[in-house]
Amino acid sequence: MRSLILGGDGYLGWPTAMYLSKRGHEVMVVDNYLHRRLAVEYNFPPLLCVPYLLDRCKLWQTVSGKEITHAIGDVQDYEFLSTVVKEFAPHTIIHYAEQRSAPFSMKGYKEAKLTLINNITTTFNLIWAVMNEAPDAHIIKLGTLGEYGTPNIDIEEGWIDIEHKGRKDRFLYPRQGSSLYHTTKIHDTDLLWFYVRMANLRVSDLMQGPVYGLLTEETQDNLDLLTSFDYDDIFGTVINRFVVQAVVGMPLTVYGKGGQTRGFLNILDTLQSIGLVVDNPAKPGQMRILNQFTEQFSIMDIAKLIQEASAALGLKVEIAHLENPRKELEEHYYNASRSGLIDLGLKPKLLSQEVLQKMIEVVQRHKDKIDTKLIMPRIKWS
Amino acid sequence: MRSLILGGDGYLGWPTAMYLSKRGHEVMVVDNYLHRRLAVEYNFPPLLCVPYLLDRCKLWQTVSGKEITHAIGDVQDYEFLSTVVKEFAPHTIIHYAEQRSAPFSMKGYKEAKLTLINNITTTFNLIWAVMNEAPDAHIIKLGTLGEYGTPNIDIEEGWIDIEHKGRKDRFLYPRQGSSLYHTTKIHDTDLLWFYVRMANLRVSDLMQGPVYGLLTEETQDNLDLLTSFDYDDIFGTVINRFVVQAVVGMPLTVYGKGGQTRGFLNILDTLQSIGLVVDNPAKPGQMRILNQFTEQFSIMDIAKLIQEASAALGLKVEIAHLENPRKELEEHYYNASRSGLIDLGLKPKLLSQEVLQKMIEVVQRHKDKIDTKLIMPRIKWS
Repeated sequence: MRSLILGGDGYLGWPTAMYLSKRGHEVMVVDNYLHRRLAVEYNFPPLLCVPYLLDRCKLWQTVSGKEITHAIGDVQDYEFLSTVVKEFAPHTIIHYAEQRSAPFSMKGYKEAKLTLINNITTTFNLIWAVMNEAPDAHIIKLGTLGEYGTPNIDIEEGWIDIEHKGRKDRFLYPRQGSSLYHTTKIHDTDLLWFYVRMANLRVSDLMQGPVYGLLTEETQDNLDLLTSFDYDDIFGTVINRFVVQAVVGMPLTVYGKGGQTRGFLNILDTLQSIGLVVDNPAKPGQMRILNQFTEQFSIMDIAKLIQEASAALGLKVEIAHLENPRKELEEHYYNASRSGLIDLGLKPKLLSQEVLQKMIEVVQRHKDKIDTKLIMPRIKWS
Repeated sequence: MRSLILGGDGYLGWPTAMYLSKRGHEVMVVDNYLHRRLAVEYNFPPLLCVPYLLDRCKLWQTVSGKEITHAIGDVQDYEFLSTVVKEFAPHTIIHYAEQRSAPFSMKGYKEAKLTLINNITTTFNLIWAVMNEAPDAHIIKLGTLGEYGTPNIDIEEGWIDIEHKGRKDRFLYPRQGSSLYHTTKIHDTDLLWFYVRMANLRVSDLMQGPVYGLLTEETQDNLDLLTSFDYDDIFGTVINRFVVQAVVGMPLTVYGKGGQTRGFLNILDTLQSIGLVVDNPAKPGQMRILNQFTEQFSIMDIAKLIQEASAALGLKVEIAHLENPRKELEEHYYNASRSGLIDLGLKPKLLSQEVLQKMIEVVQRHKDKIDTKLIMPRIKWS
């Protein structure tokens, strides 16, 4: 099984590469180091410096005896991507090659344009490379649960049956994002759905919630295999950010009331989910949409859980309510379906006190590396 | 009232400019001549050669005594657009600056990419130019009825109330286009709706059906003020194409069974609609969506109407069924709402035998200019 990972240098891309490699896949990773370049330009160094892909792949071979190949290039460059797809002839292509930060996409014209054009172009080029060079390949695209927004009805998995004035039809579940980033993911979904219908593509579109976690089975003993762990206000996801705040003794900064509810998952469950989706591909002409999260929490729920885990480790942590820099509902109905991955066999690793305490302990070992100036929100939605 | 028209050299853009100018608006037109350049590159000359904007504007001043100013430039160039918006300070901006052909968008990678990037970037730049330079300006964006596809439930005007498992919410009406072009218009709608919520923009998004017609009140007596009339397989809309086929004695080429049903309107009703929407702007934070068409017909209905009108003028016209080059349903339910523009005061000019006969007579006068090689479909969806 040959698996090609676009964005294979990222927070989820690199752990996915090792995960599939360990399970016997022939893995190739592609990245243009956009995230690393933005980290330099916008000053958000990850917690630990991670090696470049050349060295990551070498080290992985030393540690595991398995080869991961890599290519540095931009998926926005069609010649580059189509050559990679033609030569590697993947069975599966996993698309992480997008600008993934909501705050970044709301900073200004330049950042919004980068997000808009990068995300639509990488998805478009992937579609065309598959149509032209690997029409039977299974595309796995990482979407976001945020595409649905916070509707006042239950969130289904991608599709909804609508009865209207006595007639019925089935539609893509209506979407409305709360940042430009989320809107670009809606664009991706519409684009994929169009080409699935036109060209019988096999697509799995994973509506993923915010991921937390740091270590995976493959990185355990080797810090140089660690994923790139962001904890800043722009790229750090909320649980990761709160854990870092707890470690340095900052109050956990809840935006507004904290009633904002989302679906979350452990990085281990992202890997498990991807593995299950790779092993159970979509059929030709099928656009399978799965909601990829394991539990719903409000931001206040999370803050309290982290406060509790910190206390158990002797850390006294406060919770602070900041003026919300985002435009979003702070109290709302939220009930999202997540049966698809469970049906495929996902065994969730839930957000237990044990999980949180372990995360806190790992981050504590690198407490001296934390730059507390990176955490407070700098980007406003208005 | 200052009205800025993006894509002001086009089939609808130039007639709109004259229409608003005649009614006392201060009008500025912007175009990058993309359509003219594509006409050269892909060989689809319009029926009659029309002057460039400089000469069109001069002639209009001579004929009407009113000034239309113009700027040649690309709306994809933010510096250009934002400078125009800042200096002209429009009350209304009408956005026609998109690649508007479904077959063109399905030709190959190059044409698909041009359509994808041009359409999303022009809309994005317009949004940012308004946010930065004219936040109270009313944006009128031409969408397409084709965004809705052919659902098995009634098509409402942009929005739908959904009751699901005992709870209710209001959503953008679910969309699925039948070409990449239509998909890019869905992208536009999602993008506008996002920024309307974030920045309190005033937006009217007009879901327009295929337009037919040639002469408008402002062009009647002067061929050099005529709009650019396409009748080829790529840019010619179906009624215009059939009229040209009738004039040259070609069979009317119905794609497949011809049960494909759409909403149509006369170019005069496009102008009337735009005038009404300009005079009744959306409120700040309002995304008003109107379905802009006056009548539903199947393609076979239209072929028969044109056959009848031709016969009355002594032209014997046959109807031929071609293998459908598109992927679309050829028999389906279709019932689209269109009360919004009627409520604003639209008095439709329906597709009568008189209207068709007049169109045929006008095209007959230029019969020697028709290149019959341009009409048969050359682009397949698969």
